[in-house]
Amino acid sequence: MLKKIVKNVQNQTPLVHNITNYVTVNDCANIILACGGSPIMADEMTEVEEITTICQSLVINIGTLNSRTIEAMITAGKKANQLNHPVILDPVGAGASTLRTETVERLIKEVKFSVIRGNISEIKTLAAGTGQTLGVDASAADLVTDKNIDSVIEMARTLSEKTGAVIAISGVIDLVVDINQVFMIRNGHPLMSKITGAGCMLTAVIGAYCGANPNQVIEATVTAICAMGLCGEIAATKCEGTSSFKMHLIDAMSTLNETILEGGMKIETK
Amino acid sequence: MLKKIVKNVQNQTPLVHNITNYVTVNDCANIILACGGSPIMADEMTEVEEITTICQSLVINIGTLNSRTIEAMITAGKKANQLNHPVILDPVGAGASTLRTETVERLIKEVKFSVIRGNISEIKTLAAGTGQTLGVDASAADLVTDKNIDSVIEMARTLSEKTGAVIAISGVIDLVVDINQVFMIRNGHPLMSKITGAGCMLTAVIGAYCGANPNQVIEATVTAICAMGLCGEIAATKCEGTSSFKMHLIDAMSTLNETILEGGMKIETK
Amino acid sequence: MLKKIVKNVQNQTPLVHNITNYVTVNDCANIILACGGSPIMADEMTEVEEITTICQSLVINIGTLNSRTIEAMITAGKKANQLNHPVILDPVGAGASTLRTETVERLIKEVKFSVIRGNISEIKTLAAGTGQTLGVDASAADLVTDKNIDSVIEMARTLSEKTGAVIAISGVIDLVVDINQVFMIRNGHPLMSKITGAGCMLTAVIGAYCGANPNQVIEATVTAICAMGLCGEIAATKCEGTSSFKMHLIDAMSTLNETILEGGMKIETK
Repeated sequence: MLKKIVKNVQNQTPLVHNITNYVTVNDCANIILACGGSPIMADEMTEVEEITTICQSLVINIGTLNSRTIEAMITAGKKANQLNHPVILDPVGAGASTLRTETVERLIKEVKFSVIRGNISEIKTLAAGTGQTLGVDASAADLVTDKNIDSVIEMARTLSEKTGAVIAISGVIDLVVDINQVFMIRNGHPLMSKITGAGCMLTAVIGAYCGANPNQVIEATVTAICAMGLCGEIAATKCEGTSSFKMHLIDAMSTLNETILEGGMKIETK
Repeated sequence: MLKKIVKNVQNQTPLVHNITNYVTVNDCANIILACGGSPIMADEMTEVEEITTICQSLVINIGTLNSRTIEAMITAGKKANQLNHPVILDPVGAGASTLRTETVERLIKEVKFSVIRGNISEIKTLAAGTGQTLGVDASAADLVTDKNIDSVIEMARTLSEKTGAVIAISGVIDLVVDINQVFMIRNGHPLMSKITGAGCMLTAVIGAYCGANPNQVIEATVTAICAMGLCGEIAATKCEGTSSFKMHLIDAMSTLNETILEGGMKIETK
Repeated sequence: MLKKIVKNVQNQTPLVHNITNYVTVNDCANIILACGGSPIMADEMTEVEEITTICQSLVINIGTLNSRTIEAMITAGKKANQLNHPVILDPVGAGASTLRTETVERLIKEVKFSVIRGNISEIKTLAAGTGQTLGVDASAADLVTDKNIDSVIEMARTLSEKTGAVIAISGVIDLVVDINQVFMIRNGHPLMSKITGAGCMLTAVIGAYCGANPNQVIEATVTAICAMGLCGEIAATKCEGTSSFKMHLIDAMSTLNETILEGGMKIETK
């Protein structure tokens, strides 16, 4: 199944519309290309509907949101919904400011998302308004462990029910949850939290994978998370520091194939 | 002749004003430095005239245009025209949205460009409004081959006549056309289409080369394209994936000299 | 003393709020992570006060300023002052346009900065309105040498008296000056001027170091400059061009420890 998902991306070159932040935008574009997609970044109100129309999916990332781009996100999201394109949300820093928290609440109300991917603090904020988001990284108090994992899954399932979206929570253990299914992924490497953009890049890859597999959104999300985590593991064996780690991570994505993925993925269902 | 052009850049350190997109801006700044120029990025209306005045050339790239920056492009372009600075246009995604198509039409009407560089779909859009731009990459249906090259050259010549600009079309074969001359360049590597910004970086290098050689715009453009393509070829022999490819490409530009360039350039006139 | 400063950063993971430019923002975020801090970039008026409240320091960089972000800089700066957070200014291109010069004058009037770091042309502009800023690089006419260093120190001391800030001037010799003290640092490498963002990254690292050492601002600044310069020296021994130089520089920062720093730092007091 995962093989097919990867092949679809590489064969179809899905065009991914990104309304994203200016911090990690270059890495997001490059990793979309590396995984087999084609990125387009466009955030001006008067063109986002047309741009999203020619694409296969839309990624909304609020990392450096502002009043101009928030309106573009809503407009593009609604258009993508009309076209039945998968729409992916990365609620960067939700909980860190009222603007971010209110913006994700508005986005969830006005746009139907296929996938919402964040760290545990961001997802907690969406679920209940109680995440302790410290900047753009997960709060230590919020971390997912084998101990608290059942309550986290329950929270994610409730959020999935409320939004209709697949909920993906990144951390030492990655979780992918919808109303019926739970996947736990144990790929990845601690260095991924030592570069900016690992989360944003993952969301961008999910955008490409869902764009090429619009009817298998949860499987596409799980595959993207495995692929990204595995590339992190490969990069960690080659790097001499955090910047070469990022380079090797994108390199690994650009040379990933189904055989490497199948050999390295660590997925459990629950 | 090409030797002289490269030396002028390295000796004069031309200051290049860029109004560009936030996706590839870092790579553009770094490759301008690598080729011997000095970049300044400034897009606020109230300062672009002053900034362009202290520069030797202006690069306008519409990759992530918005209403604020469009006005700054027009204003800076007119000022650069008054000063007889070379002005270079990269019509990223022209044809992909009405906003982009109308913006390049307005730019061409209000600003005199020395060089317009794009992929074949973007240039077709400018020439006739009929390019099939799929996002920011060229449409397969539009590709330049040895078969259709004569009609492409004719189109470019007509656009050059209309705009007064040298027309540079990037692809497997690169074309540089004005009313009297045609250059075909066969440098480059397929990996250049697997990173974001190869086109934007090339336009930035053209900006630096024209800034140091304002009276030899077509020769400067041809030289920049050869240099960039050759750096791509060098990078391809060293990389392990797309991200290290980009690094080696900029590294190659920063260590390029006339001897390497003369040994590797593949230019034909027609 | 320097050991303690470095350890504090690595143990406390200071959260650094950056209102910065879109050219080097990714490098700034990555080097803050590499040195042990945690970056958050946020420039929207309606959230900057909240964001700066959860941080330990604020870095204001005017590299691609616009009317929207200038107001956010002022607002965030005032809030950070109320909270006694260190606020760092990077006056990129001050002197290159009236907008930049007036903006730094306004910033200095309305916000109390702990550290102001720039090249000699930028600092001269702040001190007297007479720097010959050519774009974002220092003018050759302004360079600090052993010959003119006394008059430069005098200028910096006067600016420190006027602003209450530690003044850091980057160049072949780096200077850190307040009313009572002068430090000269001879770390660094010429390749640092061949990449974009070496100055911005240094300012970001100063932000992290001051965030973790708010009562030792001048020592934190000196340590950050030594660390950055030493990483440049290490990178220069490993790189094959300017792009790999940047990678190795960030790699070096991510693996720097007190022993390496103590072994390589070149500080003199005067």
